Amino acid sequence: MALVVQKYGGTSVGTIEKIRNVARRVARTYDDGNDVIVVVSAMAGETNKLVALADEMCEFPSEREYDVLVSSGEQVSVALLSMCLQSMGYKAKSYLGWQIPIYSDSAFSKARIEEISDTNIREDLRSGTIVVVAGFQGTDRDGNITTFGRGGSDTSAVAVAAALKADVCEILTDVDGVYTTDPRIVPEASKMEKISYDEMLEMASLGSKVLQIRSVEFAKKFGVIVHVRSSLNDNPGTLVMKEDEEMETVLVSGITYNKDEAKISVMRVPDMPGIAAKLFSPLSESNISVDMIIQNVSHEGYTDLTFTVPRTDFKKALKLVEEASAKIGAEGVESNQSIAKISIVGVGMRSHSGIASKMFTTLADEGINIQMISTSEIKVSCVIDDKYTELAVRVLHQAFGLDKVQD
Amino acid sequence: MALVVQKYGGTSVGTIEKIRNVARRVARTYDDGNDVIVVVSAMAGETNKLVALADEMCEFPSEREYDVLVSSGEQVSVALLSMCLQSMGYKAKSYLGWQIPIYSDSAFSKARIEEISDTNIREDLRSGTIVVVAGFQGTDRDGNITTFGRGGSDTSAVAVAAALKADVCEILTDVDGVYTTDPRIVPEASKMEKISYDEMLEMASLGSKVLQIRSVEFAKKFGVIVHVRSSLNDNPGTLVMKEDEEMETVLVSGITYNKDEAKISVMRVPDMPGIAAKLFSPLSESNISVDMIIQNVSHEGYTDLTFTVPRTDFKKALKLVEEASAKIGAEGVESNQSIAKISIVGVGMRSHSGIASKMFTTLADEGINIQMISTSEIKVSCVIDDKYTELAVRVLHQAFGLDKVQD
Repeated sequence: MALVVQKYGGTSVGTIEKIRNVARRVARTYDDGNDVIVVVSAMAGETNKLVALADEMCEFPSEREYDVLVSSGEQVSVALLSMCLQSMGYKAKSYLGWQIPIYSDSAFSKARIEEISDTNIREDLRSGTIVVVAGFQGTDRDGNITTFGRGGSDTSAVAVAAALKADVCEILTDVDGVYTTDPRIVPEASKMEKISYDEMLEMASLGSKVLQIRSVEFAKKFGVIVHVRSSLNDNPGTLVMKEDEEMETVLVSGITYNKDEAKISVMRVPDMPGIAAKLFSPLSESNISVDMIIQNVSHEGYTDLTFTVPRTDFKKALKLVEEASAKIGAEGVESNQSIAKISIVGVGMRSHSGIASKMFTTLADEGINIQMISTSEIKVSCVIDDKYTELAVRVLHQAFGLDKVQD
Repeated sequence: MALVVQKYGGTSVGTIEKIRNVARRVARTYDDGNDVIVVVSAMAGETNKLVALADEMCEFPSEREYDVLVSSGEQVSVALLSMCLQSMGYKAKSYLGWQIPIYSDSAFSKARIEEISDTNIREDLRSGTIVVVAGFQGTDRDGNITTFGRGGSDTSAVAVAAALKADVCEILTDVDGVYTTDPRIVPEASKMEKISYDEMLEMASLGSKVLQIRSVEFAKKFGVIVHVRSSLNDNPGTLVMKEDEEMETVLVSGITYNKDEAKISVMRVPDMPGIAAKLFSPLSESNISVDMIIQNVSHEGYTDLTFTVPRTDFKKALKLVEEASAKIGAEGVESNQSIAKISIVGVGMRSHSGIASKMFTTLADEGINIQMISTSEIKVSCVIDDKYTELAVRVLHQAFGLDKVQD
């Protein structure tokens, strides 16, 4: 007998009929002899409807009240799912964040889970009850409702799995698992049987939007095995888990791309202490997140500084940077919105050399110019002209031997 | 400086624009130098929508989960009202039932309030914050969400007013106050300046559906002054309060009627111990509430027994009674759905005689036959043919001197 946590997203519980389907799958897992905790999101569209109400009410809604508002969505879905399970003859009980409780900090709308009590849930499981948990929400120590940001139900599920020491946390979603790259671009892309936490972190933050990043961090911290799989069939999906030897033999696990960024370069920046701060402070004050930052060795006291920002913030960022660069006496600002970031990810990189150069060669062979490079322990990213995105992903996928079914 | 509790119903917060109106009125009360606690219901239609979801999901939804579901409606309205007040520059904070907490028993969907903590609210008021409370909901001692039944927000408001020792509990509604009778029938009906708790209890339960009965019981128990007034203007409404000498000088305060009942008579019932129990137990087991019950002195060991039931339960009740009366050897069952109950209410009756007979005479003068009579300390009710309802109300209203503006 195992303890299984299952998480279903908003589209899986979008209608009464879909909730019935979820209930049937949950019941099947229970009938197989498992203890089951189900974490659900709000019915698809509900959260957006609530957000629209807030927007209609005022321009800058209070964050505390915003969380009170949007957390009501999960309250509806947990109640309905519990009713459904009961009508099928199962014992079931719903829990809101504060009833467990799931304690978080007080950073409304992007709160971090700090502690989960297992007492109440444990007691229910002991009596054979299926526990239905509202995702996305918790409470701070003062009893204020908090929420965990878009995709926060993933983190709820992983955190509950960690607190209850569940055997597995299943994320039931509309994809089969995690793929070596986007199958829409590379039909030969294959579903990975397993992937390490670190690789998943790089994959997720680089554009393979399967899991909320924070949930992966949580899973890594507490060693929770996360099983990303389809809610529509029983095929095994992808296990996100601790790195093992087998993983290290694979040089590159996946290829990701991101076309949502733009590049800004500040030319001939005087290379002296405090300059970078003067350039980037206005951006952070405007809540613009900067991704890659590249500063090369300086020549004659001057250097070039290049970085990427989300395309949606591009205009605003450019204006701020132009002002700042004038103040610090830089020569000028150049920018480019037509870029893409291509990354190769794999824990095998740590113990193998030549991976980066193989990437560069592969791109060069296709005549693709590399505009920026940045590396981490298990990732190499290149910024290229965005018209080459698909080509780059395809040739890299083939070059690193991913064009075949993995087992 | 006073502490004012204001309660707004679902139609008053039915749209964003209406919530803005409520916020303006609340703000005005605050600007007048009062501490303000606002209790709100769910946006009009929301609760019905949630109930429809439960109905679609299954036939007999769990009561615990039902309360989880329907209580989400108030969560939306308190958040929106708080946001609105904040955007107007006021300090405001929403409270759900469990956050105060409002403790109730565990009778889901019809729970009774047992205790309200004033600590959190008191602290907010001290800092000049407008407190926005979700009506209709509380929590039991085990942390389960409970709700208080249709109209339960009235009781929430009165209970909060009692716990915080508020100076007044204003019930803002779509009527101007409590009238001497239904103005649709008697245009000369006048708004009462004040009414005693006991009279209000009789008026409410007899068909003047302005306040949830339980809220009046609560107000009486804790001496809360309830001010029923219009949400659309600033006119004073009706104060529901402790009986005073002035009230006692009025013989009859109001006339009410009820056309939602039906009459069942069991003829020639053997008059022996246990017979009434045998007749009424099947009804109570089927959750059919019996209102008036009349049993007259017996003749030769037999008596007739007459009672009224809600018209909606009439068919079911008749079937049960026919079965039971056959068993106990009664002669037969007669019934009538075309009845109306007319009542006169007034604390003055206690100290004045002749009120009942004046009622009977007035009805007789119009040729209206009285089918049943029942009396309490401050009320006389007569069952008549329902086609005479309007006539009876009009002549009684005039006979007891209510056809003039009270001051």
